[in-house]
Amino acid sequence: MNEAWLEQIAWTPDGLVPAIVQDHASGKVLMFAWMNREALAETARSGTAVFWSRSRGRLWRKGEQSGHVQMVHEIRLDCDADCVLLRVEQAGGIACHTGRERCFYRLLDGESWRTVEPVLKDPADIYGDSGA
Amino acid sequence: MNEAWLEQIAWTPDGLVPAIVQDHASGKVLMFAWMNREALAETARSGTAVFWSRSRGRLWRKGEQSGHVQMVHEIRLDCDADCVLLRVEQAGGIACHTGRERCFYRLLDGESWRTVEPVLKDPADIYGDSGA
Repeated sequence: MNEAWLEQIAWTPDGLVPAIVQDHASGKVLMFAWMNREALAETARSGTAVFWSRSRGRLWRKGEQSGHVQMVHEIRLDCDADCVLLRVEQAGGIACHTGRERCFYRLLDGESWRTVEPVLKDPADIYGDSGA
Repeated sequence: MNEAWLEQIAWTPDGLVPAIVQDHASGKVLMFAWMNREALAETARSGTAVFWSRSRGRLWRKGEQSGHVQMVHEIRLDCDADCVLLRVEQAGGIACHTGRERCFYRLLDGESWRTVEPVLKDPADIYGDSGA
């Protein structure tokens, strides 16, 4: 992976770049995650979104468990080359692990965060419960 | 600033949270920046976007030099509480310091980043040149 376009990215000291994921049709911002070099290269090559899971310390092929893969329509880079933007088609219409359409489901209402988007599918039905 | 809603945010060890800025009308993602506690509190209080400039090490009231302020229509928080999303009205129609509508003006085209958005105003006219 010595592609010049990957070299142009201002990776963090940890080798990551933040990624914003937006629905290509509705324009809704679905989620925010991180990518390492391998994740971004695989995303570009495969056309489906791959991130770096900081909590699990491994590549995270979005939808690998849930089936909620993201087909990538375009990848953009910002002026400082330190953030990428993906426009995707969200399989199943659910991007969030809580079973909601998207992760940004809390709205600041006065001085509290109010949940404004419904759970579309029980996470237990998405990910299965233990051994079931 | 002991507001409970600020306590709910999963601040980085440096006391920051990433912020995505989206145009409230077009849905376009305009820019990506960082906020500290003070920046987010002031954004919520004032209704105009304030960030933390990591390069300058100080609060950055968006538009303080350019006049390109961002009037905040809503603030959202994601499932992990580690990213905020602002929907804003962009004064002057220019969010990027390069004089473009937005920072995400480079599109991955094969194996290179291609600039796909025009400069709307010369940065020298936005920020002034030395002493002029």
